[in-house]
Amino acid sequence: MDGLTETKKRSKEIFKGRIVHLFLDEVELPNGKSSTREVVKHPGAVAIIAVNKEGKLLLVRQYRYPLDQVIYEIPAGKLEPHEDPDDSAMRELEEETGYRCKKMEKVASFYSSPGFSDELLHVYFTDTLIEGKQHLDPDEFLELSSATVAEAEKMVAEHQIYDAKSVYAVQFLKLRALQAKK
Amino acid sequence: MDGLTETKKRSKEIFKGRIVHLFLDEVELPNGKSSTREVVKHPGAVAIIAVNKEGKLLLVRQYRYPLDQVIYEIPAGKLEPHEDPDDSAMRELEEETGYRCKKMEKVASFYSSPGFSDELLHVYFTDTLIEGKQHLDPDEFLELSSATVAEAEKMVAEHQIYDAKSVYAVQFLKLRALQAKK
Repeated sequence: MDGLTETKKRSKEIFKGRIVHLFLDEVELPNGKSSTREVVKHPGAVAIIAVNKEGKLLLVRQYRYPLDQVIYEIPAGKLEPHEDPDDSAMRELEEETGYRCKKMEKVASFYSSPGFSDELLHVYFTDTLIEGKQHLDPDEFLELSSATVAEAEKMVAEHQIYDAKSVYAVQFLKLRALQAKK
Repeated sequence: MDGLTETKKRSKEIFKGRIVHLFLDEVELPNGKSSTREVVKHPGAVAIIAVNKEGKLLLVRQYRYPLDQVIYEIPAGKLEPHEDPDDSAMRELEEETGYRCKKMEKVASFYSSPGFSDELLHVYFTDTLIEGKQHLDPDEFLELSSATVAEAEKMVAEHQIYDAKSVYAVQFLKLRALQAKK
């Protein structure tokens, strides 16, 4: 034992929805005591940092019900069952933006909120967009937009870009621009 | 109407735990149709990018039950009810690392996973650490660690640093170093 690991004793399914699969588990702590852990199981997701011919970052403007707010995000979506993240990223890019791309590279993977969820986000970058066809899910409503890095930075400061993956994306592009200058 | 906003029709509480407060809501979509939204309400959290006298980033090594994995993260914690994020950041820094600081500045706020949760994360930066006293919660087990920016970058690549706020933190420090060189 490393003095950190917790051991599952019992697991109880609380709710299974379209996105959220909630469990309440009883665990043994490193000191032998018991505690409970709430876990939201999630299929994982992909997000795409897509830069167009004009050098602008593609954004989707979307109402987010949990925030009761319209925000700008980079294109993203949940993984389908057994779907490879690389395929999912290609699919989501075209579905949400109407663009495909010649190639994309994975630039990061990270857990959104490891304290209570196993949602793992795979982030891709592409600047080789080509025309495709937008086709949204029946209950998906969004508007396509784009911004220069300077504009996107301002949008972060003003909380129009306001989620982890998209804030990461803006930072990624800033860093890329600075490194290119070296 | 902006063609994007959804309207709450009914809200049903599914579960109220220590962290996760889950609701299943019925909404009216922009096209007038109905759908459901799963929402995990969360008190919000703070995270601290803390750089010590040696120029190293403070990290906490911690088992994350949802991932069944020990990872390195920047110090962080949930907001207490009615707590100001600035106070919370000072509190969490000392509780988890045993350091206080002379001053810290907020560098970003972002939602962890706006598709299903309202968890808002406030990220702070400090490089003015002073001695304090570590005092962990009874069911909190972690080890203090630190890394140079180059080491931290490697840890991101190797998925030892593997969550959104900590990956953001490493990027933030890289960007800061590059901008200082200009």
